Amino acid sequence: MSEGRTELEKLGEFNLINHLTKKFIQKNKSTVLGIGDDAAIISMSNNKVKLVSTDLMIEGIHFDLTYMPLKHLGYKAVVINISDILAMNGTAEQITVSIAVSNRFPVEALEELYDGIHKACSIYNIDLVGGDTTSSLSGLSISITVIGTAEKKDVVSRSGAKENDLIITTGDLGAAYMGLQILEREKSIYNTNPKIQPDLDGHDYIIGRQLKPEARNDIILDLKKMNVKPTSMIDISDGLASEIIHLCKSSNVGCNVYDEKIPIDSKTSMTAIDFNLDPTTCALNGGEDYELLFTINQSDFEKVKGNPNMTIIGHITNPNDGIYFIDKSGNQIELKAQGWNHFNE
Amino acid sequence: MSEGRTELEKLGEFNLINHLTKKFIQKNKSTVLGIGDDAAIISMSNNKVKLVSTDLMIEGIHFDLTYMPLKHLGYKAVVINISDILAMNGTAEQITVSIAVSNRFPVEALEELYDGIHKACSIYNIDLVGGDTTSSLSGLSISITVIGTAEKKDVVSRSGAKENDLIITTGDLGAAYMGLQILEREKSIYNTNPKIQPDLDGHDYIIGRQLKPEARNDIILDLKKMNVKPTSMIDISDGLASEIIHLCKSSNVGCNVYDEKIPIDSKTSMTAIDFNLDPTTCALNGGEDYELLFTINQSDFEKVKGNPNMTIIGHITNPNDGIYFIDKSGNQIELKAQGWNHFNE
Repeated sequence: MSEGRTELEKLGEFNLINHLTKKFIQKNKSTVLGIGDDAAIISMSNNKVKLVSTDLMIEGIHFDLTYMPLKHLGYKAVVINISDILAMNGTAEQITVSIAVSNRFPVEALEELYDGIHKACSIYNIDLVGGDTTSSLSGLSISITVIGTAEKKDVVSRSGAKENDLIITTGDLGAAYMGLQILEREKSIYNTNPKIQPDLDGHDYIIGRQLKPEARNDIILDLKKMNVKPTSMIDISDGLASEIIHLCKSSNVGCNVYDEKIPIDSKTSMTAIDFNLDPTTCALNGGEDYELLFTINQSDFEKVKGNPNMTIIGHITNPNDGIYFIDKSGNQIELKAQGWNHFNE
Repeated sequence: MSEGRTELEKLGEFNLINHLTKKFIQKNKSTVLGIGDDAAIISMSNNKVKLVSTDLMIEGIHFDLTYMPLKHLGYKAVVINISDILAMNGTAEQITVSIAVSNRFPVEALEELYDGIHKACSIYNIDLVGGDTTSSLSGLSISITVIGTAEKKDVVSRSGAKENDLIITTGDLGAAYMGLQILEREKSIYNTNPKIQPDLDGHDYIIGRQLKPEARNDIILDLKKMNVKPTSMIDISDGLASEIIHLCKSSNVGCNVYDEKIPIDSKTSMTAIDFNLDPTTCALNGGEDYELLFTINQSDFEKVKGNPNMTIIGHITNPNDGIYFIDKSGNQIELKAQGWNHFNE
């Protein structure tokens, strides 16, 4: 955070928006008018559709500012929205960002947050086209709506999986969850004894996955290049188990997913074991990986085979067969979502 | 509220969204896919543009549940978003609704909220296409993003006002603010002595303007019928003074607005006087009227003359002339926005 502290009331709501958004440059041709009017204007062309998704992040529920730098938070808030558009096989182009903050935050804190938002917008080629800034009685809330585009014929929903399709996940799973465990552990040690410095050594990868996830637009580009259109797709925000269930229920199919196939980084596994957790459980229920989960027709198998970013973890079955996880001993276990149900925490 | 209390955790996040949105029916041809996937799908056609606007409402800042029924709150939250699309001369078609709630709220409370959202969607022909539902540590937050459509050539921004244009406001102003004063007064009496029943008699109009505002889509239809395209337009959410300043600054013009022309309902004036407030000040700085403020070329004067919903309150001047309010004694006073600056409260 830069030095000095500017109280929010010094700037006022309109100036604050202007102040925080002045360095955002519009990049997409479809953005006709961005911030500064009652609504943004987005142009359209035939054969294309707009994709819209929204996400609300609440301090104390979705993030903890004890260990989440505001710049990372801004970056992550944008990325998780982009991920939803990618999961439709589309391209994210515009976002609106609304924030509510208490007077606890100086303007400099919001500048940090918007620096992160700006960085994500730059890297992912997104235009910030609107938003709302208001005060809250306590804490910080961030609400982002993302708008994307796709050719009508390219859109992939959750509901197209068919029997015998292959189930693929990108990247590796469970790392963001283990990163969170490390951060929570160090926070609790710090709270007990503030003199002890946090020990994050050797955990860069998993902490990075928690604090600064990326959206897999590379995968969407790869699939286009490989001429593969998934039959269904979803992003893994709430844990693999929860997403598989969503996908199967939306598609009205069953599945077999194999424990031994689930890609887990060795750093994730080692940390899980340190915490007396089963790495597979972390991958299934951990959440926040923002990888893509999709299904393809078996005829596309040769095209994806050997792709280092894609792992086949199972196949789609008849709806009557149920949604099953096959453990390393070959036991069939019915999958139940545990995911991030915030109301149960 | 219906009887009984269902704890939020009993339903869980996904079931809660399904539960709250199951009775929403899609009405717009452009809504290809609504709730239930990573993003909604909205179709496009040539010569049209999409309009996007967003609004974040926080309990304790934007609304007080002591006197704001949840059903009204849901209705109002949708209406104020629609108003932003109308202010661009567009038609609102889709919304996403994200809410964060603490466990203080039972499911039945959210049902009330969504009943209001549903009613507004029915009346204004809006499709609910997405959203997010999460818990909060305290209170209720509602974030709505609205998407609208307009012919490219019909869009009216804030920045098109030209010297000599006439300035018009719809409806009457200051009523929502005076409604709020009545509600706040009765709340404070109730807090002092809960045995005293609130005395809202004779204040139906101004309280209705506060609790259940309407968006002026009738005006947009009227303007089309009259073949009048405003040169600039904005909705009056933060008080007339603030909106006039926005409009003049965006258009790089000055203005003269006349005190004696500002439409104020007699019930608003009488209540203002009861509270020792100047009715004009309430109209200028009160906010939440959700009327439309627009400018038209003088050549359109004959078309709007005598329209009971439209009042000419002044005219646009050279930017060097400044933004002026002419009081009833003919004094020129420079207009300064006081509006709803939440950070100053």
